[in-house]
Amino acid sequence: MIESLTNTTGVAILGSTGSIGCNSLRVIESLTTRHMRVVALAAGTNVERLADQIATHLPEVVSVDNETAAHDLRAMLFARDVDLPRIVIGEAGLIEVATHRHADCVISAIVGAIGFVPTLKALEQGKRVALANKETLVMAGELMTEAARKSGAELLPVDSEHNALHQCLRGERREEVRRIILTASGGPFRTKNKAEMEHATVTEAMQHPTWNMGAKITIDSATLMNKGLEVIEARWLFDFGPDQIDIVVHPESVVHSMIEMVDGSVIAQMGVTDMRHAIQYALTYPERHSCQLPPLDLTAVSGLHFEAPDLERFPCIKLAYRALAEGGTLPAAMNAANEEAVSAFLNERIRLTEIPQVIETVMNNHVNQPAKDIETILEADHNARHAALASIEELSHGLISW
Amino acid sequence: MIESLTNTTGVAILGSTGSIGCNSLRVIESLTTRHMRVVALAAGTNVERLADQIATHLPEVVSVDNETAAHDLRAMLFARDVDLPRIVIGEAGLIEVATHRHADCVISAIVGAIGFVPTLKALEQGKRVALANKETLVMAGELMTEAARKSGAELLPVDSEHNALHQCLRGERREEVRRIILTASGGPFRTKNKAEMEHATVTEAMQHPTWNMGAKITIDSATLMNKGLEVIEARWLFDFGPDQIDIVVHPESVVHSMIEMVDGSVIAQMGVTDMRHAIQYALTYPERHSCQLPPLDLTAVSGLHFEAPDLERFPCIKLAYRALAEGGTLPAAMNAANEEAVSAFLNERIRLTEIPQVIETVMNNHVNQPAKDIETILEADHNARHAALASIEELSHGLISW
Repeated sequence: MIESLTNTTGVAILGSTGSIGCNSLRVIESLTTRHMRVVALAAGTNVERLADQIATHLPEVVSVDNETAAHDLRAMLFARDVDLPRIVIGEAGLIEVATHRHADCVISAIVGAIGFVPTLKALEQGKRVALANKETLVMAGELMTEAARKSGAELLPVDSEHNALHQCLRGERREEVRRIILTASGGPFRTKNKAEMEHATVTEAMQHPTWNMGAKITIDSATLMNKGLEVIEARWLFDFGPDQIDIVVHPESVVHSMIEMVDGSVIAQMGVTDMRHAIQYALTYPERHSCQLPPLDLTAVSGLHFEAPDLERFPCIKLAYRALAEGGTLPAAMNAANEEAVSAFLNERIRLTEIPQVIETVMNNHVNQPAKDIETILEADHNARHAALASIEELSHGLISW
Repeated sequence: MIESLTNTTGVAILGSTGSIGCNSLRVIESLTTRHMRVVALAAGTNVERLADQIATHLPEVVSVDNETAAHDLRAMLFARDVDLPRIVIGEAGLIEVATHRHADCVISAIVGAIGFVPTLKALEQGKRVALANKETLVMAGELMTEAARKSGAELLPVDSEHNALHQCLRGERREEVRRIILTASGGPFRTKNKAEMEHATVTEAMQHPTWNMGAKITIDSATLMNKGLEVIEARWLFDFGPDQIDIVVHPESVVHSMIEMVDGSVIAQMGVTDMRHAIQYALTYPERHSCQLPPLDLTAVSGLHFEAPDLERFPCIKLAYRALAEGGTLPAAMNAANEEAVSAFLNERIRLTEIPQVIETVMNNHVNQPAKDIETILEADHNARHAALASIEELSHGLISW
């Protein structure tokens, strides 16, 4: 490295081999007007892709899921004659990556609850967190935002909707915002009826109309739980109450979200559906840097449409608003139940329409309490998964015949 | 008045009986969280409406077009037992209203070139100008913005497109804006062919699809010269070059305009098509105040569409870009020729499609020079009108048979 460290932003990525992780690296590689250095990477078991990333970016530390993966990675790097970084494993490894002393910014892109503790640790150390892991905020929004407030850490959303809201809110006074409006593509079942949804296959549910994403978030988009999680995420990122957070279905996903001001003016952020925009924004904020991606061409879009979400066909939205209103550990329990239910659907153990049933059962039996510390939240998460698995077991009788 | 003057904003309105003027008074009447006092009004000859406004708002000074109108107004107020304000006439009257010592904000809403000098005087005195008179900036953008810069006056656009741009630009750094995008409804001839446009009647041309406005601006919207004038207006309000100002046709007029940032992000302002929003914004900026108007309901809109403007059918756009590029007194000449041509069309002396012909003839014969002072600009305006009338005379042979 010839550049002085003062001009370089050190970046750590949790979940570097996933969709957001790979796109983050592409952003860092393509930025010509701002220098970023990848100092630490955490992946799961995709050591082949991780080896490529190490060969290109030469991080100081990398974390993998377990000792087998670490062994395979070492062998692969040795065979390719790449200098070995420090290799760490498990949750301790994730935390080491998240708190690396040369990391100014941590991209938190591990799907699900396992990203929670490492992300919290990064915030406690005052690092900017570019957050793609919405589950983290759903589980522990208060702990996370409180940690950021105490350390002065910045929490920048990578989720395209919240990234859009962050952009819309830039020039506005919070008290002059009447409401925020999250847009939802509506997913692959927007125009399907209840019966069709009951018989939806995994393949059908994975056909997201506008965004190309990982499996978990794609199923969440099919049930619209993704939007429910985003409502809770928005509450913590921007400090608006449930009555100030609305959802509108917008099939083209061109408007990434909007805010409505007290004077009736609506400010919207639009763009192409490529996560690299939001990632770059979160990395370079408050600066904006030139981007090589093709710009949005509104004249090439056949039209932008908006409709109210159907809460009957998509009950996950109601469940999320309920969890937000009741607070405590209920959002964490809801999130855990959802993760298990989505996993069971992907394994063809339950139907798509049974996902909200599993979640609701878990929520109804959840003993709510204040989400006062990590242990309480993780216990709620654990218990909810247990309850969800029991509920899934009851629902599933071998493989489903579609 | 019980309120202390320090909490009250004094407002003067140039063009109080027109569409923008009346809407401005409705905004002032409806504002419950900010007190504004109407201190001066200027109208033309609509003394009946002006008398109503005086009875309601008790301004200190009012201006009318001529002595006859002043006489009628006095009689009317006397008959209604309304205390007489000071009544002034002509351009001197307009200037007295625009520079009234109790006016903190001047709403400049007189259509056409006669609003130019009074608006300039208001800016020279450091008053906030809420500008609805785009012709003023087209004629003398450099003089106006220079006067505002010297006195520290704020120039707030009331034109919905520029008001939208002002809102979009609030949180952004100028150098990070790639381009600004003015939306155009496309007017009543958006889907008509050249032949249909040639035989357009005044009634047809007055059918604006989305906005309810005065006659001059409605015809300008039919020829898209309105958008051409707005390109020049945008240049002076926001200091972007012609290559950074684009136009997109958006028939629904829900998106009032947009900016595209260097990172590809597009920020748009949307709202209902009611000028009171923009007026209130310009009056209360940087504050936003609650507004009683119904909010935008995107789910009630059948779709938002965008298309490139057709420069062949709407040559006025090209003329405006040419005037902006060549600069000097050419924009003033173009504006004057347009005013005369629109007037001739409204009087059924020329065809709609002859409006750009008249303007182009005047522009081709115009001897361009730096727009260095009021006199030079007014002379260019005068000469262009003269040339336009000659061109109209040549084109018109009695009444047109449609």
